[in-house]
This record gives sequence, C-alpha cells and structure tokens, in this order.
Amino acid sequence: MSGCPYFEKRHLLFKNKPPTAEGEEDASQAGVNKASKGGIIYGEYLQLDKIVSAQVLQSELKGNKIHDEHLFIVTHQAYELWFKQILWELDSVRHIFITGCVRDERNMLKVNNRIHRIVMIFKLLVDQFSVLETMTALDFFDFREYLAPASGFQSLQFRILENKIGVPDNLRVPYNRRHYRDSFKGHDSEMLLATEQEPTLLKLVEEWLERTPGLEVDGFNFWERFEINIFDGLNKEKEQIEAMEDSEDKEEMMLELIKQKELFTSLFDEKRHDHLLSKGERRLSYKALQGALMIYFYREEPRFQVPFQLLTSLMDIDTLMTKWRYNHVCMVHRMIGSKAGTGGSSGYHYLRSTVSDRYKVFVDLFNLATFLVPRHWVPKLNPNIHKFLYMAEYCDSSYCSSEESD
Amino acid sequence: MSGCPYFEKRHLLFKNKPPTAEGEEDASQAGVNKASKGGIIYGEYLQLDKIVSAQVLQSELKGNKIHDEHLFIVTHQAYELWFKQILWELDSVRHIFITGCVRDERNMLKVNNRIHRIVMIFKLLVDQFSVLETMTALDFFDFREYLAPASGFQSLQFRILENKIGVPDNLRVPYNRRHYRDSFKGHDSEMLLATEQEPTLLKLVEEWLERTPGLEVDGFNFWERFEINIFDGLNKEKEQIEAMEDSEDKEEMMLELIKQKELFTSLFDEKRHDHLLSKGERRLSYKALQGALMIYFYREEPRFQVPFQLLTSLMDIDTLMTKWRYNHVCMVHRMIGSKAGTGGSSGYHYLRSTVSDRYKVFVDLFNLATFLVPRHWVPKLNPNIHKFLYMAEYCDSSYCSSEESD
Amino acid sequence: MSGCPYFEKRHLLFKNKPPTAEGEEDASQAGVNKASKGGIIYGEYLQLDKIVSAQVLQSELKGNKIHDEHLFIVTHQAYELWFKQILWELDSVRHIFITGCVRDERNMLKVNNRIHRIVMIFKLLVDQFSVLETMTALDFFDFREYLAPASGFQSLQFRILENKIGVPDNLRVPYNRRHYRDSFKGHDSEMLLATEQEPTLLKLVEEWLERTPGLEVDGFNFWERFEINIFDGLNKEKEQIEAMEDSEDKEEMMLELIKQKELFTSLFDEKRHDHLLSKGERRLSYKALQGALMIYFYREEPRFQVPFQLLTSLMDIDTLMTKWRYNHVCMVHRMIGSKAGTGGSSGYHYLRSTVSDRYKVFVDLFNLATFLVPRHWVPKLNPNIHKFLYMAEYCDSSYCSSEESD
Amino acid sequence: MSGCPYFEKRHLLFKNKPPTAEGEEDASQAGVNKASKGGIIYGEYLQLDKIVSAQVLQSELKGNKIHDEHLFIVTHQAYELWFKQILWELDSVRHIFITGCVRDERNMLKVNNRIHRIVMIFKLLVDQFSVLETMTALDFFDFREYLAPASGFQSLQFRILENKIGVPDNLRVPYNRRHYRDSFKGHDSEMLLATEQEPTLLKLVEEWLERTPGLEVDGFNFWERFEINIFDGLNKEKEQIEAMEDSEDKEEMMLELIKQKELFTSLFDEKRHDHLLSKGERRLSYKALQGALMIYFYREEPRFQVPFQLLTSLMDIDTLMTKWRYNHVCMVHRMIGSKAGTGGSSGYHYLRSTVSDRYKVFVDLFNLATFLVPRHWVPKLNPNIHKFLYMAEYCDSSYCSSEESD
Repeated sequence: MSGCPYFEKRHLLFKNKPPTAEGEEDASQAGVNKASKGGIIYGEYLQLDKIVSAQVLQSELKGNKIHDEHLFIVTHQAYELWFKQILWELDSVRHIFITGCVRDERNMLKVNNRIHRIVMIFKLLVDQFSVLETMTALDFFDFREYLAPASGFQSLQFRILENKIGVPDNLRVPYNRRHYRDSFKGHDSEMLLATEQEPTLLKLVEEWLERTPGLEVDGFNFWERFEINIFDGLNKEKEQIEAMEDSEDKEEMMLELIKQKELFTSLFDEKRHDHLLSKGERRLSYKALQGALMIYFYREEPRFQVPFQLLTSLMDIDTLMTKWRYNHVCMVHRMIGSKAGTGGSSGYHYLRSTVSDRYKVFVDLFNLATFLVPRHWVPKLNPNIHKFLYMAEYCDSSYCSSEESD
Repeated sequence: MSGCPYFEKRHLLFKNKPPTAEGEEDASQAGVNKASKGGIIYGEYLQLDKIVSAQVLQSELKGNKIHDEHLFIVTHQAYELWFKQILWELDSVRHIFITGCVRDERNMLKVNNRIHRIVMIFKLLVDQFSVLETMTALDFFDFREYLAPASGFQSLQFRILENKIGVPDNLRVPYNRRHYRDSFKGHDSEMLLATEQEPTLLKLVEEWLERTPGLEVDGFNFWERFEINIFDGLNKEKEQIEAMEDSEDKEEMMLELIKQKELFTSLFDEKRHDHLLSKGERRLSYKALQGALMIYFYREEPRFQVPFQLLTSLMDIDTLMTKWRYNHVCMVHRMIGSKAGTGGSSGYHYLRSTVSDRYKVFVDLFNLATFLVPRHWVPKLNPNIHKFLYMAEYCDSSYCSSEESD
Repeated sequence: MSGCPYFEKRHLLFKNKPPTAEGEEDASQAGVNKASKGGIIYGEYLQLDKIVSAQVLQSELKGNKIHDEHLFIVTHQAYELWFKQILWELDSVRHIFITGCVRDERNMLKVNNRIHRIVMIFKLLVDQFSVLETMTALDFFDFREYLAPASGFQSLQFRILENKIGVPDNLRVPYNRRHYRDSFKGHDSEMLLATEQEPTLLKLVEEWLERTPGLEVDGFNFWERFEINIFDGLNKEKEQIEAMEDSEDKEEMMLELIKQKELFTSLFDEKRHDHLLSKGERRLSYKALQGALMIYFYREEPRFQVPFQLLTSLMDIDTLMTKWRYNHVCMVHRMIGSKAGTGGSSGYHYLRSTVSDRYKVFVDLFNLATFLVPRHWVPKLNPNIHKFLYMAEYCDSSYCSSEESD
Repeated sequence: MSGCPYFEKRHLLFKNKPPTAEGEEDASQAGVNKASKGGIIYGEYLQLDKIVSAQVLQSELKGNKIHDEHLFIVTHQAYELWFKQILWELDSVRHIFITGCVRDERNMLKVNNRIHRIVMIFKLLVDQFSVLETMTALDFFDFREYLAPASGFQSLQFRILENKIGVPDNLRVPYNRRHYRDSFKGHDSEMLLATEQEPTLLKLVEEWLERTPGLEVDGFNFWERFEINIFDGLNKEKEQIEAMEDSEDKEEMMLELIKQKELFTSLFDEKRHDHLLSKGERRLSYKALQGALMIYFYREEPRFQVPFQLLTSLMDIDTLMTKWRYNHVCMVHRMIGSKAGTGGSSGYHYLRSTVSDRYKVFVDLFNLATFLVPRHWVPKLNPNIHKFLYMAEYCDSSYCSSEESD
C-alpha cells in the first residue's frame, strides 16, 4: 500500500521481552541488529521481484502478443494469493480446534475473527469478477488457444480449500467422468489425498457442537425438554383448532398442524437422521444438530453470543462460495457460450452443476430454519440453576493461552 | 479462477494464419508443437511457485511468529499485482496516443475500454481495504516493529503510476521535508526520474483535446461562436432584469448576473488561464480546455460519444485515486492513531494532506462544470455543413490497424 | 443526500429561453415566480411525509411489535423505489426505439447511458441483500406469521419489469401450478396483460439489429461473405491436417474439425434457427443474430463502438438479474430452509428454478461466443468503399433531436 | 423483494401464546381474524401507493421535463428511507442503554447486531453514489435551476442522526456563517433542539465504558497496575539502552524513549485529559478512556469479546460516515465544480471541511492506538481471582429480558 507510513518508524522500544528460551532471545536481537543497519525495505519484504515478474504471456512467447492475456494472468494470480490467505486462516482455526484449545473460551474471539476474515476475502473474490469481465469474449478468443491445456481445474489451492472446509469426495460432480484428483500429478495429487483424510472444518465444528453446554442428559437436557415442549404445544394447538366452528379455515389449519407434527416427529427420529446423513442430505451428527439448535435458541446467553456469530459466519462462507461459483458460471457463459462446441461435455454446464446444495458444507445450519418454533415453546432457563450459560470455561495452560495458539 | 474450464480445450483449429514474416510463422508452429506434447498447465502458466512462496513473515524470522502478518503481506502483494496491471493498461493507452494511432478513430474503443478497466481495478482496490480492516490496531502492533524501516512510501510501482498519469513533482506534498524520490535508490530512482520526463497521460490527453474537431478557426470556430453567444445571452438577461419592477429579487438577480459575467469573462481570458496554469490550479492548456468544453456540449454527436465517455472515465480515475487515498488514511488512523508519538511529523497527517485536489490530475474536467450554460446558448450545428461530427477519421496504414497497436 | 448544497443556489439566470409555444412560456414563468417566493424545500420536494411515514409494522398492529420487521419493510420499499427508477429508464429507452428516434445515431449515447444506469442500479440491488442478511432466520421467524399472505410474488413492478425486458409468458416457471398473473387482481392484472403485449426491449433490439448496416444483400453482404470465409478456412484446416503424419493428434484434430464444421453448418441453417426459436432456445430472429455477430466482429469501427457497448450492457442486465435471483435464493435458504414444511411446493426450490437461462432474455448474445473465429477469417472491410462504418446517420427533425426524445 | 415466497404461507400455527394482558390477547386475535379473511397483500403492506407515487419532477411541473430529475429524486428518497432505518436501530440501542438493560449482558448481542446493521447500511449508502454518478454535470445542469432553494442541508433525518450519535453543536462547521438549525423551521427546528439535549450514543457508551469491570480501585484496579507496568517497562528499556555502546543508534533510541515517556506521562495526566476534552480533541471521559483501553487489552476474555466488537463497530460507523461525506464531496465536485461561481462560499469547500476528525464522534477509540504496548506490559490476570471476566452479569427482571427491550 503505497504511501503507507505506518510501518516506517523504527520501533526500537519495547525490547525488554519477558524471559524466554535462549534461541528466541537471540533471534530477537538479530532483529534489532538488522534494523539498526537499515532493516528491510518494502520491495524486499514483499518479494516483489518474484510477484511482479511472474507475468509471462503465452501469446507473446508464441509470436502473437495479445494485450488482454496480461489481465487474465494477473486476475488468476490475485485469486491464488487470496486462496493462500484463506488457507492460512483456515489452518489456524483448524489448529485451535484440533489441539482442543477451543475449549478455552478466550480463543473463540480468534476463531470467530479468522472465520469472519475468510468471509471478507470471499466477498472480495466475488467482486473481483467485475475486473475480469472488462474482457470480452472476443478479446479472450484471441489468446485462449495458447493456454491449452491449462485449466482452472488444476488449481491445487482451491481443491485443498474445498477439502479442508469439507466438500466430500462422493458429493463432487465429476467432469467428463473424470475424478477431480486426476487433474493433478505426483506430489500435488498426494497432497490432495492427504487433505481428504485430515479433519475438515465441518468435522471439527461438529465435534465442538456435540459438546455444547446444555445438552448433557444429566444436566439441562435440552433435547428432551425441547421435545416435550413441542408436542405439548402442538397438542394445545390441536385442541384450539378442534374447538373452532367448522369452516374451510379450520380444515386448512388442521391439515397444516398434521404436517407440522410430521415435521417435528422426523426431527426427533435419530434413524431418519442417519438415513439422511448416509445420502448426504444431512452432514452433521444428530448430537451436533442438537447443539446448533440449542445455540440458535439461546443465542443471547453470554456463552452463546460468539458461537452464534460463528455459525452465521460458516453459513456466510457457504453462501459466498456458491456465489463465487455462480459468478464464475456467469463469466464463463459470456466468454465461451453454453455449448462446448468442440466435443466433451460443456464446461458451462459442469460449472452450473457445482452451484448446488451438494457443495454447501454447512447445509444443515440453513435447514435448521425449518425447525424454528415460537420463543415461548423453547425450554426456559432458570438463571439460578443454569449458571453454565453465564460462566465461560477457560484453560490456564500456557499452551492454549491466547498468545501461543498459532 | 479455479474450476475454470474455458481454457481447457485444446484449440487445435484455426491454425491457417494469414501469410506473415517467416520468423513469426515459426514461433506459431512452435506453439502447435508444444501444445501437441501436452502444453502448459495451470500452475506453471501462472508461475504459482513464485507467487505462493513469496510470503515470508519477518516476525517468524525473528522468532515471534505473528499470525496476522501473513494478511499484511498478501494484501500488499495483491495491491502490487494490480498496480502492475494498471501500468500495463496505462502504457498501452499512452502508446496509442504517442504513436498517433489515436487519430484513427477505430482505436478510441480500445483506449476507452482500457481506461475503463483501470477504473474497475481502482474500484476493487478501494474495496480491498475491507479485508485488511479485519486486522485491528492491536493485531498490527504485535508485528509492526519487525517491519522497520520498510514503508509503503517505497512502492515503486505506485510512484510510477502517479508520474505516468501526471501527478507533477512540484505539487507533491513533501513528507518530513524529504523529496519522494529520496526513498528510492539506484536503478529505481533513475526509473522514477525517467517516468517524470516521459509524456504523461495528462499531456497526451491535452494534445488530443487540442485537436478536437470543431475548434478550427477557419472551420466551425467553436470558441468564438461560444463567446459571442454567452455575452449575447448575458446581455439579454440583463435587459430582462432591468425591465423588472424594483424588488429585493431584482437586486439579487442583478448581483448574480454581474458575478456570472465576471466568471465567463475570466473563462475567455487566456492570460488569466496561463496564470492559473503556472500556479497549478489549472492543468490543461487553453486550447485543450476549449476542446473539452466542446466535447461536453456536443457529447451526443457521433464522433464525440466515445470521447465524452473517455473524459468521464478520466475523472473516475482521479476520484477513485483520491478515494483510495482517503480509505488508506482511514485505515492508518485506525491502525496507529493520529499522533506520530515517536517523533517526526505524523504519517496520518501527511497522508491526509495527499487527499487533495493537488493530486487530482484532471481537475480541470471537474471544474468545467462551473462553466455550463443552457443548451440554447450553445452554438448550433448545421448538419448540412458540419459533417465532421458524423464522419470519423481513420488511417489505413497497417501500423495503426486495430490488431497492431500494442 | 444530506448537506448537499448543489441545489441550494437560486438559479435565476439563464431565463431567456428560445421562443417556444405560449403555454410553455407561461409554465416557465410560473417557475420563476414560485422561486422568487421562496420555492420548494427539500422535504416537500422529496415528499418525505409519504416516504418516511409508510412503515407500519404488522407485528405492532397485532400487539407484538418485533423490532426487525422495520428493516424488512424498508428494504422492500427501497427495492420498489429502485424498480420504479429502472422502469423509468426502460420506458424512455423503449420510447426512443419505438418512435424510430434510434435511427438518429446521436441518440445512441442516451440509449447506452440509460441502459448502463439500469446495470448500475441492479448492481446496487444485488449488494443490498447484505443489509437484509443482518436479520437472522430467528429474527424473521418472530414476525413472519403476521405477513401472511403477502408475498413478493405480488410485486407488480418486478413483473412489469420482466415483461418489458422480455421474459416470455411461456418460459416462466409456474409456482404451485399457478400462472404468475393469478397473484394479481383487477387493474393490476390488466396492466400486466398489457405489458405482455407491448413491444419488449428484446423485440425492439431485435428490430434494430436487423437493420445493422453491412447486412444489406446488395451492399457489403456480410452474411454471405462470412459463410464463404468460414468454409474456406475450414477446408484449408482440413488440408493441413490431412498433410500431417498419422498420429493420435491428427485424429483428434480431424474429429474436432468435423464438429466445428457441423457447428458452423448449423449457424447458417435458417430452418434450424427457427426450430430453436420455437423451443425458446434462441430468442432473436435470424437476421438480428447476423447483425449482432457483425457488430461483434467490427466493434472497433466508429459506428459500432457504442452499439457494441450496448450489447455488452444488455448481457450485464441479464447477468445481474440472475445474480439478483440467486442472491435472493441464498437469502431465502437461510431464512426458511429448503423444505417448505407446511405443504405446497417449496418456495426455495421454486426460486432456484428461476435462476435459469430460460430467464435470460438476451441469451443469444452470450451464445454467440460459440461462433467466434480468428480475426483473419472475418471479411475485410475496404475503407474506400465501405464508408458506411465511418459515417453516422442522423435525422434532423426536431422530433428526434436530442432534447425532445423523452 | 420480488418472487419472495417466504412470507407467503399462512402461519396459522403457534397461536397458543403464553397468558398475557387481556388487551394484547385481543389484538393478537384480531390478527388471526384478519389473516383468516385473507390478510394483507404485498402492495398494501409496503404502502406502495405512497412510495411509488412520490416522484414529482419540478422540471415537468415547470413545463420542461428533464429525464434525469427522476433519478435525482429516487436516489434521495432511498437515502432518506435508509436514514429512517438507521434511526430506528439507533433509537433501539439508545433505549437499551438508557433503561439500564445493557447491564444484563444478554442484551449485548442485540446492541452489537444493531450497531453492526447500521454499519452495513452505511456501506450500502457509500456504494449508492455509484448510481447517482451515472448522471453527468451536464444532465444535472438541465434541471438544477428548478430545485432552488431546496437543499440537502434541509435533511432533517440526517441532522437528527448526527445529533443522536453525538456530533456536537460547537464542532460543526458553519455554512455561510449560518447555524445548521437555521435551515429548519417550526416543529423541525424544535425536534432538532430536542435531539441535541437527549443522551447521545457517545454519552451512553461513555457511561457504559466507565463501568467496565476491572476498573474498580478496590478490585483489579487496572489503571494503577497499568501505569506501574508501563513506567517499569520504560525504565528497563532505559537501562538497556544506557548499557549499549555509544553510537548513533543509541542516541536515536534514547531520544525516542524520552518521547515515549512523555507520551505515556500525558496519558496518565487527568488534567491534560480535561484540557483536551474542553477543546474537543478528546470526547470521552477519563474513566471511559480507561475502560476502552481495558477492553482493548483484554479483548479475548469472555466478557470483553462482544464489547470489543462493539468498539470496533463504533469506529466503523465513524469511518463510514466520513467516507460517505467524502464520496458526497467527490460527487459535488463533479456536478458543480469547485467554485461557487454565483456568490456565497463554495458548497464544495464547505462539504470538504466536514470530512474532518471534528466530525468523528468516537475519535478517541482511534487515537488509543497511540497508547498500545507489548502484551507482556499489560497487567496479568490471575484467573483464580479474577473470575469477573468469565462470569457475565444478568438481570432477571422481565423488563430487560430479551423479548421486551424494544
């Protein structure tokens, strides 16, 4: 950022660090020494020699330089830079979950902020299409022959990103009957396979939701109380309707009541849940779903305020990823039309098919909206007993203290 | 763009090129051969090995890895990538002007599109602050000591950009009494000096405006006709006001009329123009100003439609650059406060001072709004005579033909 | 816009209008008189008494005021305000086409700017969801029962907008088997029917494209020349491929060539075009398609620069309308989940089905990207003969002069 | 939102409300009855008859209809709609503070969300200029004479908004030597005066910050501990520097240390604070500043996570309001140039002067960035003792329970 003076001053002060391991102290001193000799300058710091020299036009190499290819390269490089940043945030969040540091509720701010940052980056990426869209189909046509067979399918970082968030292998749409990993070779392919086996953000969030305070059967026992309240409520509704005079309205209301009852019956049916899970229509465990619903209903309780924000941000990521996919589809439609024209199935139609709920990792969080009930049906908290929602857990091991979790 | 299939197909067709020089034919064949052996893949094409490995955290080197430094680096690298793209577009436009190819009016579309693309990139850059703003002052504080003395002042590309558009040396705000070029050494400093001496976009646009059809004294002679119409109009106003009954309104109107007359008298006073020019309050030559005003008033005439868009886009660039500067100021305020604290003048206040009309290169185009008059005061075109506004100029030399201007 | 001083000054000058019909002169005088008595103030001018008093919460009326309903109302009112503005622009553009004033090429700037303004408004509307998304499913649940049976389906302006652009009745997705017009009664229903019968923007653009200069069979005869060049080119390709040594590549190339030939054969087959037209897969006449392709290929010629921009903006409208629909779908998913829950087909799934190419009015302009060819296959213009692309048409009747077309 | 089905279903269920006062029960029943008779439809609900009929062009009234005036009206109406929504949120937040309900920390989520919603609305308003900017200075000139003397200065809602947030009367820039309230008459003027006397958001936040847990002198006593740590730290720095060999660096570091010491000495000087307060350079009380700094440093503690977000959002509002002002200035520059031309001081220059830190209500929150220190200088919490940061306060009176605070 040009003209940015805020890292210009020499910060020579604040050097009296707390006692630490010797090696680190040295490293810190080295910094002081380096700074005193002039330190690092902007271009070196950002390694601009690499960044700004990485635009080589294939069209130029092949003797027919096409002006717009430069935009094409820069845009894709900017996407990849931001993908790297997203992975950086994602890995740090996953680390906090994997190490268990998430149990120290001081770390929730960090988790939440980093997930929110991913949201903001995706917003930028969605907007970024507006720049590439200044290139018309005709401008693109002039150089697209030189790019073969390079393809966005080969973006390693994007596939890793999908895997780490939790797009499962079996829900991916195949392209021309090929597995997505076939576009990668050697080390890249292995890396992808590895990420498929690491704990995904989905999985980690699931485990965390399963531990939501209030679910304990020997404690507040939310799920049982909730089930009771709902069927109680529905029964009272039924009585009220039955007391009405006969009318079209009455009939209609009774019909709806029956459907509502079926809906909630299904919610409390663990077998049905597992069936939906096996088909990929649900993605969270039965227990995790309960935790999410508990957080939804008690979102204003101190301990749930930030967790509720987190669930909202996870939906934001899903939404923005599908918006990104959809903007991509729109651009491809404009660039190459809807017909593949030259054999194989159409890229346009493939991409369209990925703008689908199959690719929404946190689809359950959206679908919980189906199970909302009026506030007075939600089991009441008694604040004298249920202090658990006013008192955060912490963990005083230095390992999870806020400075060390990275 | 991940998952992007539109450059996946092998475009083997369309190879029967028109006869060209032998060398080029060979280069083209090489391309075919390469493609037939598999061609280039995505990661190589974008040189992702360079792009994605260029994030080295100073805090980590110094033994105290701070998570958010990664965001800081990636954001600045993304800015620099886009600066490179802006320079690419800017240079191509300047080339079209310098070579005179702009006289072939077929090239106006290209000029206009590329300037518009710069506008779209600056819009993105203005929005991009929203990502860096997810970092708080406290997060930044954790690593800013490691960055010294690297500074955004050292962004070579941004300074080149300012120079090539036309920010003049003498209107720059000095920072701590130092010349902006002092932040650069050796080759970089020479490069900056060179760009100060090359024709700026401002200068090239000025020359083009001076040639605006309709200004010819032995032709339509817009300026003389315009002057006559205006003073004619003002005199008629005066008569109408004088004929009114005495009243406060009458007095007020007369006062305003006098001011209006002074204003327009100043417009037609070339000496005054040159005086303002010397003070940096105007930036375009007297003739160029006339051309701009002509394009404003006759913007719907076929030959002026695209030129009018161009003038609008040039104002967009100016506006967006100051918005970028202003967003930058806002972020710095949040990151380091308004006081420098540690000596020297405050970076915050320096940056604020650059959000100024001194840095608006095309300030004259804005200020022309002061000289608007009703449509019926504008000299009428007689379409039977003034075909020049319906007939574009072209130049059939292959040099300037649309395919070759890069 | 608060604090906006630019309409504060009394513009008493410039009153000496050109002689016009008497009535108009009077109206103008009335204006002066009114101004002299103090004129209109901001709140009156904008009728803020109406605008700012139109937020009545159903939840409050029903004794259970829910805070977030206010946001829901204001957001929808803002949408409707902007829909009104879009209709204003759309009607003015359609008027220029219907009256034939579009033949005076001075009016192209106006057409282009107004279509571009619609684009900018749609961009804002797409972004506007970010505000409504600050309301969670749970907040919405608290008041949604009070809204029944009000429904966005009942937005008259949006349906009129779709009709006037050119969404055809027979391509609409029915919702719960009901015709879209069934949601409206009386006057509104008649109005909708009327707009279905008025010339749509699609139809008007089609007629204009059919008149594209260069299509004349006794003139440049683009279509015939283009057909000849293409098959000539393809035949040369074939010869080149046949001359290659046998290899997998050769085979592949030959296969692709055949497909390419089929593709272009279909392009020049008017019967096939009419068949696709009848199925709704193409929407423009055969002749109009030729005009669009001509503008695509010769976009840099002076007369086609602005028309080319117009075609681009029309695609922008289509794209943004589907993005708007898609953002809407995303928000609905979050608000009510994907299951209807209470009978009837799911609103979510209905809305998803409208994010479809069936709703892209200018789908042909996208799909023309399939028929791009290298620049050297495009029939060459001979500038000595083909002055038609350098000389704009105008029409000097005052009716179409730039001031009067509204 | 057109096509929006989510409020189409009849929500007949969930009627068995908890027992409430009789009047309310009736109101609720009325709702049921109304719904059963068909309820309200979209257009009525949104009062579209008012909204969509409120566009009356002054130019048309005066016999010279100018197309673009419609955009001008609609844009300003959209601004006023959103101002109303901002006031709605602002009032609800102020209510939660005024009633003391903010002490029940369950209400922090609501406060935070509503302030965040204001942020999102301002973001939209900043972007909304892109639509009005499609109108050129020349288009505006055609009708601006008809608007006199209406002026954005007369936007009552915007002035109320400024007052309620906390722009103080004495820091406002006068325009042409007139007090801002002079642009309003009668009831409006009284209303403005009233809002000047109500508790501002600034004042309410100040009181809340003064109560920040941890400031208690007989408790954690943050401020004293903090002062001790800082001067301790600075003294250790001094010793380290003194132990260095003589060099330019040493001298420089010592100089900086002295400045740093002065800076912090000023921080702990209450008299100096009061002096700055009286000049308008600080805006929060000494105690509130301490609270804010405490929240900054301990932001990860459970009780401070949401308060920290709140402080960030308050800065966002300030930043966005100045960005809005700056975008406004940019547009005015383009529309009318920088010279007033017709007497009086220039509107452009007046507006520029309001893009100033004088108008930043929460300027202290930005400037606290000057007083950051390394994490190890911040007084350590001992979690065994300082449970206050893990345990939220609540208040079980039904008055402040989450459903009733509006």
